[in-house]
Amino acid sequence: MKLATYKDGSRDGQLVVVSRDLSTAHYATGIATRLQQVLDDWNFLSPQLQDLYETLNSGKARHAFPFDPALCMAPLPRAYQWADGSAYINHVELVRKARNSEVPATFYTDPLMYQGGSDDFIGANDDVICPSEAFGIDFEAEIAVVTGDVAMGSTPDQALDGIRLVMLANDVSLRNLIPDELAKGFGFFQSKPATAFSPVAVTLDELGDAWDKGRLHLTLQSMWNGRTVGMCEAGPDMTFHFGQLIAHICKTRNVRAGSIVGSGTVSNRAIEKNGKQEWAKGYSCIAEKRAIETILDGKPSTEFMKFGDTIRIEMKGKDGQSIFGAIDQEIVSRAG
Amino acid sequence: MKLATYKDGSRDGQLVVVSRDLSTAHYATGIATRLQQVLDDWNFLSPQLQDLYETLNSGKARHAFPFDPALCMAPLPRAYQWADGSAYINHVELVRKARNSEVPATFYTDPLMYQGGSDDFIGANDDVICPSEAFGIDFEAEIAVVTGDVAMGSTPDQALDGIRLVMLANDVSLRNLIPDELAKGFGFFQSKPATAFSPVAVTLDELGDAWDKGRLHLTLQSMWNGRTVGMCEAGPDMTFHFGQLIAHICKTRNVRAGSIVGSGTVSNRAIEKNGKQEWAKGYSCIAEKRAIETILDGKPSTEFMKFGDTIRIEMKGKDGQSIFGAIDQEIVSRAG
Repeated sequence: MKLATYKDGSRDGQLVVVSRDLSTAHYATGIATRLQQVLDDWNFLSPQLQDLYETLNSGKARHAFPFDPALCMAPLPRAYQWADGSAYINHVELVRKARNSEVPATFYTDPLMYQGGSDDFIGANDDVICPSEAFGIDFEAEIAVVTGDVAMGSTPDQALDGIRLVMLANDVSLRNLIPDELAKGFGFFQSKPATAFSPVAVTLDELGDAWDKGRLHLTLQSMWNGRTVGMCEAGPDMTFHFGQLIAHICKTRNVRAGSIVGSGTVSNRAIEKNGKQEWAKGYSCIAEKRAIETILDGKPSTEFMKFGDTIRIEMKGKDGQSIFGAIDQEIVSRAG
Repeated sequence: MKLATYKDGSRDGQLVVVSRDLSTAHYATGIATRLQQVLDDWNFLSPQLQDLYETLNSGKARHAFPFDPALCMAPLPRAYQWADGSAYINHVELVRKARNSEVPATFYTDPLMYQGGSDDFIGANDDVICPSEAFGIDFEAEIAVVTGDVAMGSTPDQALDGIRLVMLANDVSLRNLIPDELAKGFGFFQSKPATAFSPVAVTLDELGDAWDKGRLHLTLQSMWNGRTVGMCEAGPDMTFHFGQLIAHICKTRNVRAGSIVGSGTVSNRAIEKNGKQEWAKGYSCIAEKRAIETILDGKPSTEFMKFGDTIRIEMKGKDGQSIFGAIDQEIVSRAG
């Protein structure tokens, strides 16, 4: 099934069930008003939502209305955890290669993850508000999952069973704040403003065999100012699958229902062609494009985002239909 | 007023109002059932809780019952944000000096903060469950505040107005996991298991003039296995006050109601005595004791905590009464 959260002026919004083709929606009010409630009590509430979803898909839901992604908050407008990985090591390799730094051997066996802020997510069509272009505004197109409870010490396989929903994320990054921040040693903070998520979150059955043991084998499209810049394959180059990422968190603590775990920037390896490396799939963040330019030309030529720029992130199923709806945002100055 | 959350088998527990002397409590059911609700709608709900608090203090609350800290969850059993500072630079100086590393000049002007996990806090008397003693189990006695909404771009003074509640924290750290984790560059993750908070959270008026512009001028007591190891002054050596810490978060994003912001390990400067440095106030975490030993003797002699060890953290007012109740925990193996 597909779930979204409609803006209603409250902090947590109103849970709606959305039809498979994203054309219609129905308030879930009789079952649950907030997505966190459903995650807290998944086994009891999700079958009821599934029933409503099937009625909606068959065109028989009595109070269905046209679905409008512009009215969506993030599926979880605020969450108790946002833990973002960097599961595509190819991305790390490129960024490091551009600054002549080696990737430590442990990066291939021990996932790289950071704890993100989760008190103030933004909706798929909400503006990305930033105090200054000088901060180096970048998008990061990612896959994210929402978990149920996963106990401390769970294995990657056990952790896979804890995945409830999948969605897309735009983990906006302020690139020019990152070097000083990471040099302090405590990880990202000011360099990671509010993250946006796709209009809908979907259960695993919606993904069919494209979901395979914690990896999603579909193409993540990124369109910057109307131009397609990324058609990245999310499956093959994901070094750590979602079960491994969740198990990483679980080593020393419990992961509780409603935790969101991100894949990090989706990234594909270069293909060797006529003795040259080619990145034909494009990129899911500008930093990676700049890293490739630095490797090829000695310096980056693509600038980061400006106020007024737009970013659209979407993923289509094998039938060509949008699965999650599109993240489609404009970069806006805080000054207005 | 003083607020606590009683265990009731649910994820968020039941909000109770606790008397000033911590002897009695009263369910807040008619007003709000969860603390997050109150923080979401502070101006409407907090005066009603204040009325109940005054009735309780006067001995006239009809359904009052004896207050038992052992039944407490963390005041916020799960939160949308846990952002922990390292506001006592003396602590950073000691740890760095012990490993012959300088404190960068910017550390005195730019707060050091990390984003912590907030989906699974533990109560003041709950066991600290850890997979292995070899991880280097340490306590960290801290002050923490709970905020209302604080908008992006707020100044430190504006941020001070956003503070709703104060409590104590035991930000348990797994010291032997920290070096490898920080070397990866993305901050703490597995080295920070579930944080515990004091039985009650209190409003600023409970602190009288001990609360002065974002600093709490009282003594934080730490007792390890029944022996007092720290009587640290929380006020004078706090390099960044809470308004500065919150404003640091607000630089690029909004801080939303129910965010918890920590001070980091409370730490006092050494006193020069007969040409020698003395740390007469003791310590609020074992890592600091080991740093002092390393500075004085070339190597640490105090070991980290073992299974079965206990840690008690408390703060008394000028009247000698416990303000927040005591964090009082045992370190327990996950194997049981």
